[in-house]
Amino acid sequence: MPTPIITLLTDFGGLDPYVGVMKGVVAGIAPQARLIDLTHAIPPGDVRRAAYALYESAPYFPTDAVHLAVVDPGVGSARRPIAVSTDHGNFVGPDNGVFTYILALFECRAVVELVNPRYRRPAVSHTFHGRDLFSPAAAHLANGVAIEHLGPSVSDPVRFPLPRLEERAPGEIAVEALHADRFGNLITSLGVLDWQEAHTIRLSPWLPNRVAPRRFSAADAQVSLGPAAPRIDGIRKTFADVPEGQPVAMLGSDGHLEIAVNRGNAAQLLGIGAGDEVILRFREV
Amino acid sequence: MPTPIITLLTDFGGLDPYVGVMKGVVAGIAPQARLIDLTHAIPPGDVRRAAYALYESAPYFPTDAVHLAVVDPGVGSARRPIAVSTDHGNFVGPDNGVFTYILALFECRAVVELVNPRYRRPAVSHTFHGRDLFSPAAAHLANGVAIEHLGPSVSDPVRFPLPRLEERAPGEIAVEALHADRFGNLITSLGVLDWQEAHTIRLSPWLPNRVAPRRFSAADAQVSLGPAAPRIDGIRKTFADVPEGQPVAMLGSDGHLEIAVNRGNAAQLLGIGAGDEVILRFREV
Amino acid sequence: MPTPIITLLTDFGGLDPYVGVMKGVVAGIAPQARLIDLTHAIPPGDVRRAAYALYESAPYFPTDAVHLAVVDPGVGSARRPIAVSTDHGNFVGPDNGVFTYILALFECRAVVELVNPRYRRPAVSHTFHGRDLFSPAAAHLANGVAIEHLGPSVSDPVRFPLPRLEERAPGEIAVEALHADRFGNLITSLGVLDWQEAHTIRLSPWLPNRVAPRRFSAADAQVSLGPAAPRIDGIRKTFADVPEGQPVAMLGSDGHLEIAVNRGNAAQLLGIGAGDEVILRFREV
Repeated sequence: MPTPIITLLTDFGGLDPYVGVMKGVVAGIAPQARLIDLTHAIPPGDVRRAAYALYESAPYFPTDAVHLAVVDPGVGSARRPIAVSTDHGNFVGPDNGVFTYILALFECRAVVELVNPRYRRPAVSHTFHGRDLFSPAAAHLANGVAIEHLGPSVSDPVRFPLPRLEERAPGEIAVEALHADRFGNLITSLGVLDWQEAHTIRLSPWLPNRVAPRRFSAADAQVSLGPAAPRIDGIRKTFADVPEGQPVAMLGSDGHLEIAVNRGNAAQLLGIGAGDEVILRFREV
Repeated sequence: MPTPIITLLTDFGGLDPYVGVMKGVVAGIAPQARLIDLTHAIPPGDVRRAAYALYESAPYFPTDAVHLAVVDPGVGSARRPIAVSTDHGNFVGPDNGVFTYILALFECRAVVELVNPRYRRPAVSHTFHGRDLFSPAAAHLANGVAIEHLGPSVSDPVRFPLPRLEERAPGEIAVEALHADRFGNLITSLGVLDWQEAHTIRLSPWLPNRVAPRRFSAADAQVSLGPAAPRIDGIRKTFADVPEGQPVAMLGSDGHLEIAVNRGNAAQLLGIGAGDEVILRFREV
Repeated sequence: MPTPIITLLTDFGGLDPYVGVMKGVVAGIAPQARLIDLTHAIPPGDVRRAAYALYESAPYFPTDAVHLAVVDPGVGSARRPIAVSTDHGNFVGPDNGVFTYILALFECRAVVELVNPRYRRPAVSHTFHGRDLFSPAAAHLANGVAIEHLGPSVSDPVRFPLPRLEERAPGEIAVEALHADRFGNLITSLGVLDWQEAHTIRLSPWLPNRVAPRRFSAADAQVSLGPAAPRIDGIRKTFADVPEGQPVAMLGSDGHLEIAVNRGNAAQLLGIGAGDEVILRFREV
């Protein structure tokens, strides 16, 4: 029998045993499930970052995996607990926008509100739905319970506004920095890019209805980071393609444009952060 | 065959591979055991915090789970290595107070000293009993070895003084802040509280022989945090019940009174820390 | 059927879901493999520290374990991806020195370059070989694929210069601090030491062809940490053997000389760091 995978993503950090407690609850309901941590270091309440982490991780898991996402600053308020079934796996968490990219980019089959008391812990606290409500739902889904049994359909799940990705002028696309990763690399909303022959890059827009697909020259591209930061000429394959300490625009591992500094921290060195505008100028080919 | 669970709680942090090495030792002895981390970020040597984490976590695991707790500033000294069997699971670790709450609050069936060389690694270092002594004991317990085989009974395990929980005057209970969690929420020694009908809260004391059980009005309760900090009026269900940036007294997920700030860090904003006195004034109903 | 173990060691930290994604890839190829984290908090690009962590961890795992090590500042450059088979387990990672201690100290059976496209992901990015190349190789090794199938033999894997361990004068051995652990304990290149009868210590050199094996008196040994730091008299079994706040030279859990401060942070208090010279003066017995 295949052993289902349940991933966990939270902003609980590692200081407290909250994640371990969630795993204890899961193990009591679905002892065969395999538990894999995505991250527990989402900055507290940073729903956008959690949403991006789900988008970039889920495609690398089997499609019957259950992804449990608890970044939930509104726990105990009226926000709904939901589960989402897609062609890239199943998702469980608060209805606060954390599934925005999932809903926009994957093929959604069902969204339900987690109201069936049969699939909750007997007593549900007001402050730890990860333990009392989301973990049981994920465990029951991993056990094969049909998502429709968890509760009624939700037609209007919460979504935050999608990030900037727009053609300002011919050959000029405005995007934004989404966040910096552990190395200080800035991930931007420009994607999905991939390398083609003859040193060209193909853009297949990840967000729907924004810019047209196209192909442009890597060497001729220019990336501007705002008035104070230097302009970067050319897009490279990796940070090792520039001297140490130099900024570089490159293709990240998820196909998004990243701004990095070879063996340095770009976010700190360039003073760029989440939401800052990034402009790509390119020569179409 | 059920696969036993072994949880791990240490102050080893994530920098060094010490926890991984412990898991390697466990996997060599009990390959079927499922390993679940509670936390490895206990502040170095903070036995009280580790004790609380065990108390709040163990009830969410199957009762045959083994909880391995290595917060051990006295490793290599004369402190004994012990195992404790209770109605809420089995515990393995140093005899330094880390099982104080377990011993006080769970039904203890056996406490033994880990002296049987058959259930240790052949060579026991003076500085890493987690690897050489506690991990093998936990793995053998998970394999079904009876706790009595690990060593002789211990009649006087070390306990630290239990925290403050006392009625100072009619309608006034003095407790203390135990620690702040990752979000800066202050967990206090006032517990266990739960919500009843008509906006009342029931107190069923977690510590024995301190205060009488009672029921009081949530709205009329007042929480004082010391001379410099503001008094908080009323006890709420969750931090989302007050405006952003406002302090709130609420019921934590383990039934203890918590002091939080909605979307803020209460420990930093209010300047309260472990051991500081907190006073509850209430109107009994 | 035994379930193979795959350990993971990276410098990815916990902020991003990169480690979780690697585990998803492994689980897709080798669903039975057991995943154990060694550490993901190697300082970014610190190949030497990663190399030491592998050396101190691998012997505690079954010999058929696969150790996946991704500390890879040169990802995307010409550095080769390799796998190494030894009498203490199998290793997969970049050919950048991370296997220096493995190659020097374990019995190596094969070193191969990971070029067989059958054991990679279909599309290999330029920046995340941990996901696209190393995880699949580790998973296939855990599945029982022979290492020779992964690619051709490598005769000259990259190694960094081994650390200092030399006899400067009779009774005087110069070594160096390798790094500080989470507690601030300084691990040195003086090893492997173990306790003998009559308060003597036996040195069985871990690095080949440096100093002769010998035995010396623990009480008479002196450890000098450089001109500004205090000299430490005697080598103890554990930090609890000196008063709180006092520096102590002791045998670490891996048999290396460690400099610690009882319940304090030696690296901070003594101002010593990686690469700093440490001198042992001893009286042979």
